[in-house]
Amino acid sequence: MKVGLIGLGKMGLNLGQNLLDHNYEVTAFDVNPDAVEEIKSYGAEGVSSLEALVQSLGQSRVLMIMVPHAVVDSVINEVTPFLKSGDIVIEAGNSHYKESIRRYSQLKELGVSFMDAGTSGGMEGARHGANYMVGGDPDAWAIVEPIFRDTSVENGYIYTGKAGGGHFLKMVHNGIEYGMMAAIGEGFEVLEKSEFEYDYEKVARVWNNGSVIRSWLMELTENAFSKDARLDEIKGVMHSSGEGKWTVETAMDLQAATPVIAMSLLMRYRSMDNDTFTGKVVAALRNEFGGHAVEKK
Amino acid sequence: MKVGLIGLGKMGLNLGQNLLDHNYEVTAFDVNPDAVEEIKSYGAEGVSSLEALVQSLGQSRVLMIMVPHAVVDSVINEVTPFLKSGDIVIEAGNSHYKESIRRYSQLKELGVSFMDAGTSGGMEGARHGANYMVGGDPDAWAIVEPIFRDTSVENGYIYTGKAGGGHFLKMVHNGIEYGMMAAIGEGFEVLEKSEFEYDYEKVARVWNNGSVIRSWLMELTENAFSKDARLDEIKGVMHSSGEGKWTVETAMDLQAATPVIAMSLLMRYRSMDNDTFTGKVVAALRNEFGGHAVEKK
Repeated sequence: MKVGLIGLGKMGLNLGQNLLDHNYEVTAFDVNPDAVEEIKSYGAEGVSSLEALVQSLGQSRVLMIMVPHAVVDSVINEVTPFLKSGDIVIEAGNSHYKESIRRYSQLKELGVSFMDAGTSGGMEGARHGANYMVGGDPDAWAIVEPIFRDTSVENGYIYTGKAGGGHFLKMVHNGIEYGMMAAIGEGFEVLEKSEFEYDYEKVARVWNNGSVIRSWLMELTENAFSKDARLDEIKGVMHSSGEGKWTVETAMDLQAATPVIAMSLLMRYRSMDNDTFTGKVVAALRNEFGGHAVEKK
Repeated sequence: MKVGLIGLGKMGLNLGQNLLDHNYEVTAFDVNPDAVEEIKSYGAEGVSSLEALVQSLGQSRVLMIMVPHAVVDSVINEVTPFLKSGDIVIEAGNSHYKESIRRYSQLKELGVSFMDAGTSGGMEGARHGANYMVGGDPDAWAIVEPIFRDTSVENGYIYTGKAGGGHFLKMVHNGIEYGMMAAIGEGFEVLEKSEFEYDYEKVARVWNNGSVIRSWLMELTENAFSKDARLDEIKGVMHSSGEGKWTVETAMDLQAATPVIAMSLLMRYRSMDNDTFTGKVVAALRNEFGGHAVEKK
């Protein structure tokens, strides 16, 4: 099968190699010509425009888009003039499910099938076996399923039904991830403030062998402590890239009580500030009513 | 090596068989004579009193206590008259680390080494490979380490140093477990309230194969949904047995900010009530200031 791959960042380049390993003919495009040269060196056809990419695919074209979510619309708008009914566009990045539903409807008008594919497992997964959650039309799914089966780990893909369901599931996956990561972080916070002297790498290792909380995230915790025993080199600022926020926003729209995931998101925001206005206000009030000392800047 | 096993409940019976598998001579006692008969059938020596248990062990005696935490003190008090300097008492249940420190000091006065062993991995772990976190004196550890090495999974035990550190670590492990479980639960809550129709068993399965949140808890989630596709048979009441509460209490004593774990604990309490007084008060206030309708009982 031929696959047109748009986007050769860290994820796209790895996914491209993964496709090539499984004997797909890959035609690839990226705005960065160096990335195009790199994937050519692995055996892909490289092209210098979206038009050339579409032309190279022949009939029954399958395009896979793996670009930052901020540019998904511009890529789709740019490639749309070259598409025809029967083509399939897979969007494998981290888009909001409502945007995926909108894009699905937009392309449906042209007879083009849009599939929203949430991708987990990181760069290593993209290279050697990813994890996919895919929504869209069942007839398009029947055509593209081999792509997902071949490039995922065993049992590592799911077709979720109607458009948006793939990215929705990936969003919730990330929300769960936020909560799990916060719980792990807070657990080590308690250990760090305790009277005991734990070797955190060994703690994470024992928790990975036979305990209830064994998990890939705990394995990553073990890796992190193996490199830096008390994470002295790292500042505890927890950035976020949107999917946790989407999960909480969606939970509020659905009136689904998710206080633990919401708290894990809010604590990420708290970690971004060295000081808080909340803190100033509460300190000022304690001073006002009780004469409690405030710390001056 | 001879081991005196006190407590033949679900955990103790499995641990006893595990010890026998590894060629330990096990003398076992339980208040329930049927449990004693059962472990005799596996090849252990069964006794009908704690005195007989201690006498059967000869010199350099190692006792392993696996009883509900409410009766740990009474078991220790009952067995203490038969102990002498050099004996080692391992308490392998779920005790509060401060009680373990107190018991350590109490037995230290008699020259008896008390070791606090947190045990994870459930009944299956106790039977075929448990997970242990053990605190206590290093010289006693040198003697009993083979017991933990032989009955745990590979890399599944850790010696944490001074008394209390084993049960402290197990407590924090359970706190993390509370947060992880709440995050998983809330994620499925969002899926359940969404417009999409997910097969939860398949969702859990795909999340267990290559995703960031793959974990033993997600495997248990997959098992649960395989038995009851929407958990229709289960009421969402989340009981707790104390270690989550201890984690949060300890975090407060240490002024360690653990809002996600605390929230997961509070939501367990919320789940115990069909209605809440909080809800009545807030509904009444909305009615008072805004005339918003209240739901009558």
